[in-house]
Amino acid sequence: MWPSSRIANLDKSIDDWVLFDLPRIAVLRLGHRPSRDKRITTHVCLVARAFGAEGVFISGVRDESIHSTIQKVMDAWGGDFWVEFVGSPMKVLDKWKASGGVVAHLTMYGIPVKQVKDMIPSDRDLLVIVGGEKVPAQYYEKADFNVAIGNQPHSEVAALAIFLDRMTGGAWEGMPFKNARLRIVPSERGKNVEQY
Amino acid sequence: MWPSSRIANLDKSIDDWVLFDLPRIAVLRLGHRPSRDKRITTHVCLVARAFGAEGVFISGVRDESIHSTIQKVMDAWGGDFWVEFVGSPMKVLDKWKASGGVVAHLTMYGIPVKQVKDMIPSDRDLLVIVGGEKVPAQYYEKADFNVAIGNQPHSEVAALAIFLDRMTGGAWEGMPFKNARLRIVPSERGKNVEQY
Repeated sequence: MWPSSRIANLDKSIDDWVLFDLPRIAVLRLGHRPSRDKRITTHVCLVARAFGAEGVFISGVRDESIHSTIQKVMDAWGGDFWVEFVGSPMKVLDKWKASGGVVAHLTMYGIPVKQVKDMIPSDRDLLVIVGGEKVPAQYYEKADFNVAIGNQPHSEVAALAIFLDRMTGGAWEGMPFKNARLRIVPSERGKNVEQY
Repeated sequence: MWPSSRIANLDKSIDDWVLFDLPRIAVLRLGHRPSRDKRITTHVCLVARAFGAEGVFISGVRDESIHSTIQKVMDAWGGDFWVEFVGSPMKVLDKWKASGGVVAHLTMYGIPVKQVKDMIPSDRDLLVIVGGEKVPAQYYEKADFNVAIGNQPHSEVAALAIFLDRMTGGAWEGMPFKNARLRIVPSERGKNVEQY
């Protein structure tokens, strides 16, 4: 589980919020194809942002519409999230490991998250790889952990959410986002949004 | 949390697995548009199946490709999941409530799941509504609970996974599927699939 410092400042105002001494979490999304994957990759990015990652590397076909969609969300809802298209995803993996980070690849063929979670170091930067249907064998070999969010076929979007939930100990709940223009006031019925 | 009977038979063989005295979980997916939502709705269905729901009602444009995709998954990976297109989703909601079921609508404007989870009765059939961008106000009014999986924009696929995870107490992990033709043997590297 992630250090509790991630949620240490919940009592303070959002401006005082500091994520101190925390390992970074980033996501590497493999093989984006604009025609087929636009919305899935957008959901991967939004889930990464909402569940505590700092950004997403995307490999495959460069797709500026992802950038602009995420930028619009950040303009409204805040945070310092980034999206970066990369030509060589394997280089991202290699560099991440070379600088001391740990790499977890989400795959239905891997070890169930319940069994593997406590083996993943929580004090090192974490790169989470989410693929498509055909992930080259090299990723299975080079990843420190091949993690299954269940051994049934479902969704890389759901897998990422559950994995980040487990790895951050649910710290995403109530996590504030800096410089938000809109903020939701939770409501039993209807919509209540504050503007700043 | 769901009754532990849902996971009571884990030690037995899959043929002995009986979900006895369990409330049903179904999902209602609103406003499907084939051109835009095909993959997202497919992911909603696959997540529903993998995380313990028995089926999905889909409203919007009838789309047989969803049926065939899910049928292929079931042929390979087992289970008794169903997908049903409905003309009037509000009638599904009304009927569910009239027969004693409880309705939870997932929306970023709702009450955080952490606060509301224990108020949702675990001994009644549960209908989980996931919408698109424009959910009519009636759903907010008629749902027993409007539940936020975080108050940030992300994904109905992720929201459904986290909600079912919370409501079943993680019972989806290791849940067996009857009559599977393929079964994954979890593996540290690569893919290991048993065929039956």
